[in-house]
Amino acid sequence: MNMAGTLSERILGSAEGTYVDRMVDRAFAHDGTGAQALVAFENFRIPGKSVVNPEKLSIIYDHISPANNSVTADLQGDLRKFSRENRMHFHEVGCGICHQIMSEGVCLPGEIVVGADSHSCTLGALGAFSTGVGATDMAGIWATGGTWFRVPESIGIVLSGKLSGHAEPKDVALSYVKALGMDGGTYKALEFIGDGAAGMPVEGRLTLSNMAVETGAKTGLFYADPLTREHLITYGADEKRISLQKPEDCSYESEICLDLDNIEPLLAVPHRVDNAEPVTRYSGTSIDQVFVGTCTNGRFEDLKRFADIVKGNKVAVRTIVTPASKDAYAKALSTGVLSDILEAGCVICPPGCGPCLGAHMGVLGEGEVGLSTANRNFRNRMGVGAEYYLCSPSTAAVSALYGEIRSPDEWDGGMTR
Amino acid sequence: MNMAGTLSERILGSAEGTYVDRMVDRAFAHDGTGAQALVAFENFRIPGKSVVNPEKLSIIYDHISPANNSVTADLQGDLRKFSRENRMHFHEVGCGICHQIMSEGVCLPGEIVVGADSHSCTLGALGAFSTGVGATDMAGIWATGGTWFRVPESIGIVLSGKLSGHAEPKDVALSYVKALGMDGGTYKALEFIGDGAAGMPVEGRLTLSNMAVETGAKTGLFYADPLTREHLITYGADEKRISLQKPEDCSYESEICLDLDNIEPLLAVPHRVDNAEPVTRYSGTSIDQVFVGTCTNGRFEDLKRFADIVKGNKVAVRTIVTPASKDAYAKALSTGVLSDILEAGCVICPPGCGPCLGAHMGVLGEGEVGLSTANRNFRNRMGVGAEYYLCSPSTAAVSALYGEIRSPDEWDGGMTR
Repeated sequence: MNMAGTLSERILGSAEGTYVDRMVDRAFAHDGTGAQALVAFENFRIPGKSVVNPEKLSIIYDHISPANNSVTADLQGDLRKFSRENRMHFHEVGCGICHQIMSEGVCLPGEIVVGADSHSCTLGALGAFSTGVGATDMAGIWATGGTWFRVPESIGIVLSGKLSGHAEPKDVALSYVKALGMDGGTYKALEFIGDGAAGMPVEGRLTLSNMAVETGAKTGLFYADPLTREHLITYGADEKRISLQKPEDCSYESEICLDLDNIEPLLAVPHRVDNAEPVTRYSGTSIDQVFVGTCTNGRFEDLKRFADIVKGNKVAVRTIVTPASKDAYAKALSTGVLSDILEAGCVICPPGCGPCLGAHMGVLGEGEVGLSTANRNFRNRMGVGAEYYLCSPSTAAVSALYGEIRSPDEWDGGMTR
Repeated sequence: MNMAGTLSERILGSAEGTYVDRMVDRAFAHDGTGAQALVAFENFRIPGKSVVNPEKLSIIYDHISPANNSVTADLQGDLRKFSRENRMHFHEVGCGICHQIMSEGVCLPGEIVVGADSHSCTLGALGAFSTGVGATDMAGIWATGGTWFRVPESIGIVLSGKLSGHAEPKDVALSYVKALGMDGGTYKALEFIGDGAAGMPVEGRLTLSNMAVETGAKTGLFYADPLTREHLITYGADEKRISLQKPEDCSYESEICLDLDNIEPLLAVPHRVDNAEPVTRYSGTSIDQVFVGTCTNGRFEDLKRFADIVKGNKVAVRTIVTPASKDAYAKALSTGVLSDILEAGCVICPPGCGPCLGAHMGVLGEGEVGLSTANRNFRNRMGVGAEYYLCSPSTAAVSALYGEIRSPDEWDGGMTR
């Protein structure tokens, strides 16, 4: 591997702006895009030819999982059969969100990863070049084992300092999305660097990388370091296959500097993800539902942040909690976090995307206002005529207890409730 | 109360075959029928007039809960607002199934109970005259506090002996439904009597009463006894309000005698509930999904029966477990039952009806075969072109481990797996 250049250049092995054909190390699709890819694959393939490198291909049922109607069930049935016949890795309903499962010891630093979902940039947190592709591209990858890439220019997101108080990785994510804007990173790669990046736990890095696509970026990369290795080994990855990375001779098209010491709890105000404002500015806004979960903030650490606040209290508004994976659910169960969440009056849904895509398990009605730890608040996405504010798990927790938007900085520890 | 006659005659205070107008002690509706009742109520009512006796009215969100799309969410929003404005009891998404919640210390022996759901007969297990009504009838009850009844003739279901081996209350339910047939109890009341009824735990009685409507019956009654009282007190009911009942001068139109000692694990074979056959006759039938839950078999005791078998093993087919109420979920969580179920590879869904009505969280595809602890296996109900076998939680557990229909009597305790 060429050690000079941006991480994207090094992993893809070519200079910015060039086009390359590459075999992929991992390709995954979910029940939604996988079903579409299957149609494309069946139409395009040479008769009798099966998928290439099935051991590198994963199918994960997370979007409408378990199935909501016969049409969905039929599509899932076809894809289930196909993936088994072709010996692809198959993750059944209830295993969790594709990006989270791929982060749990599957994808490794330096790998080329493609997912048939826009938030596939999440795996950039582990030092992989990971990006989303369309369902038809995925069908091509099943058929050939590879695809083409334009090596992206990179934008440096320079993080300094350390989060304090109630500021969390989600607030950092909303900060950089605001700084770049919803098209400020289009077709670029983001590289998260600086002491603040090195000091960020992997679960927080996953949150930051996850939202790279909200700026239009192809991916959002962290350099793999000892924390990355520790994370991967915890999930059973083979230590010998984990190579660490260091920035070297990087040239960024531009840089954005964020001092983590200055980050405060933020909201993405409807209907734009880059419309970030301090939570305190919207304090007192009435809400109808709180949703905690998704590939952005459904990890165990997120559930624990939420539980630490709601524990021993009662939520004042309907609150849906959806762990991002079976592993996150199991950890929450064994540590008492799930119990705290249940006793606080929340609804616990099975691992998966939950209502994030607006297809089941918590869609809002017209005129309703939701607070969510997800990554998108586009108009009508999670309910026609509804409004969604995006926030961190702690902001979600305090707001759930008050029944209105409140900053964690306003939380009195439950003394007055 | 007149102490002679059938329990239906005594509770309704009139002789079989007569028509009576009665105020109800409890009326409940869910998100599906409640939304319809609201439309009827708004159309029929005298302007400005609100609901009568709101303290006796409950709204419980269990059918499509949390909401699956904007239309559902809008309907739920309207009903939520209405029930709050009218000070009705309101149970949010995730609280559980209406019948189960009503059984947890709400409905009492001797009460007249109506629910806008066909399985409202479930509460007969507590010695209440409880039956299902349509949504328009429910609107009338909201407006007037009462409704009319035809006092039903009664059929005695005489239970003797004691369940042994792997036979469970569900197997008894399938037995009497088979004996009566799917229209053998139409417009009648079933009365479960005899030593076998007196010896049955309340959770089992609820399973038996629940399926009364599968014979066409209006309700299925057990006489309230010390076990009933103990059950109700456990759930916080006021002891002073619990009156016990004894059979006296009963005259039944007909009687069905079942010796519990002879009950074996049964299946209701597609597509009729009364098509009960020994599980062993279908041993080896391939299945695509197992579903454990519903108002028939989603109680804590059912989850425990299931967990006792799957504990330490892995299910071989996708398996969805949906507790009937938040209380059942919490008990399963605190006793390790939920953990056993999760570690066995099952998906745990939030309390509610789950896929039983075919609207979300586990609908089957065409040609798929399911095994379910629910109460109905009608063609296309839980998936167009799918087949459903009904069974007990233990049969569901053993079959889930084998990935095919197997009787609990064939279970070797996991030694060979």
